[in-house]
Amino acid sequence: MDKIKRNERLAVMTQILTASPNRIFTLSYFCDLFSTAKSSVSEDIAILGETMQRFRLGRVETVTGAAGGVRYRPIGLGSSSRDFVQGLCDRLMEPERQLPGGYLYFSDILAEPEAVQGMGTLIAGQYYDAGADFVLTMETKGIPVALMTASALRVPLIIARHATKVYEGSAVNISYLSGRGNIESMALSRRAVKEGQRALIVDDFMRGGGTARGMVELMKEFSVSVAGICFVLALESPQHRQIEGEKALMLLSDIRQGEPLRVRPADWIR
Amino acid sequence: MDKIKRNERLAVMTQILTASPNRIFTLSYFCDLFSTAKSSVSEDIAILGETMQRFRLGRVETVTGAAGGVRYRPIGLGSSSRDFVQGLCDRLMEPERQLPGGYLYFSDILAEPEAVQGMGTLIAGQYYDAGADFVLTMETKGIPVALMTASALRVPLIIARHATKVYEGSAVNISYLSGRGNIESMALSRRAVKEGQRALIVDDFMRGGGTARGMVELMKEFSVSVAGICFVLALESPQHRQIEGEKALMLLSDIRQGEPLRVRPADWIR
Repeated sequence: MDKIKRNERLAVMTQILTASPNRIFTLSYFCDLFSTAKSSVSEDIAILGETMQRFRLGRVETVTGAAGGVRYRPIGLGSSSRDFVQGLCDRLMEPERQLPGGYLYFSDILAEPEAVQGMGTLIAGQYYDAGADFVLTMETKGIPVALMTASALRVPLIIARHATKVYEGSAVNISYLSGRGNIESMALSRRAVKEGQRALIVDDFMRGGGTARGMVELMKEFSVSVAGICFVLALESPQHRQIEGEKALMLLSDIRQGEPLRVRPADWIR
Repeated sequence: MDKIKRNERLAVMTQILTASPNRIFTLSYFCDLFSTAKSSVSEDIAILGETMQRFRLGRVETVTGAAGGVRYRPIGLGSSSRDFVQGLCDRLMEPERQLPGGYLYFSDILAEPEAVQGMGTLIAGQYYDAGADFVLTMETKGIPVALMTASALRVPLIIARHATKVYEGSAVNISYLSGRGNIESMALSRRAVKEGQRALIVDDFMRGGGTARGMVELMKEFSVSVAGICFVLALESPQHRQIEGEKALMLLSDIRQGEPLRVRPADWIR
């Protein structure tokens, strides 16, 4: 292979690092890939780090120690995090999204790749140092955002089900009180998580936190602690709040019959 | 802002293009971002295209015409597509994954960010020119892979549900015969897709194709045609095949009582 120029090395390193967020690559990996000296790769990394920071495209970090190397962490969305979330809020306030019974249609947004990637990146940015071993969500609508969060954090996604499935092996089942006041059940395969791990709970919507409370209880059954709870959208002042310490990307004002919905970005979105 | 060097431009362009696969960026976008002449940006793109090709990291394509510009399409996984799929096969053949009743536990792999990203990239690479307007899957296990496929293709993901949900508005319901011989139902919000669109169906497992057949029937109700069908894993010689023309990443030999499972990469994986 011809000698590879710095230009080319930077492009390849960017692709490799950003495609596997939060994964640590050794310097030797890049030295071998490019047949280049460590000093050149170190300089490449320095340039890359400064450039990503300058354009607010995430952090390139050098990790020291035996398992050291370089990793990429997506943080925000360049300079446009707040605009991005405001754009989502504007879409949620479209009148045709209001359904009978005070429900809001946003399944479409929750499965749009660019939207969920942005949301997942913003959520992950809040929890890099929380020590989560996995992201937990409850089927179905929150799965895409939870997956993108897990992807940025480089941890597995664990999906709790409404009922035990034969193809998941033996499972733990619990009952919980949903935000709507119904008793519902939640199941998770016994082999899905390990005692002593930490869970980051990500879900699409919080009315009063009933489902999230259920997920916290489910984690207790597995002796797993909770590193954080984050929603895409949360009711700002629920009448019966069942959890605390949660975050949300967007906040929904109280739903009043006949009045248009009001949705705004959470204060931590900058 | 200081003048931005080619090194830095290449790193930033790589991050921006690869973070939004299949999205066309105008040359002016990058000229404005870098305050640089079009000729420089064109040269940057040429270097980037050659570099990505040399390292088999995907294609950087120039699109001509009024809506023209440059886009990035992830294609394979560098030189390691086959190794990647073989690694998944090896994991699926682990004896502890075999469950009573001939079921296979692979929910964990189907929700691992790096695994589903790789699978989605490989699947998308087969359908860039199929003209799919969206990816369709049936809840729950196929959602992560389907999302990553949709992300690479830059089209929405549409999730069919087992039953109508109030928060999805009015829906179309159908009944279908599952691979296990049960009558099951499938529902999709009326507003999710539009007449005349094309669907790429992605799902986790094909036993006989019953669920996929159901998705094809569901699409007929919406006057949507099918651009392709792809599974993560498919039974190689099903007794009662309900669909045709499907692809799969991995093929499962006939399941025989008491014998270990045999799973191999499909021939098209190179």
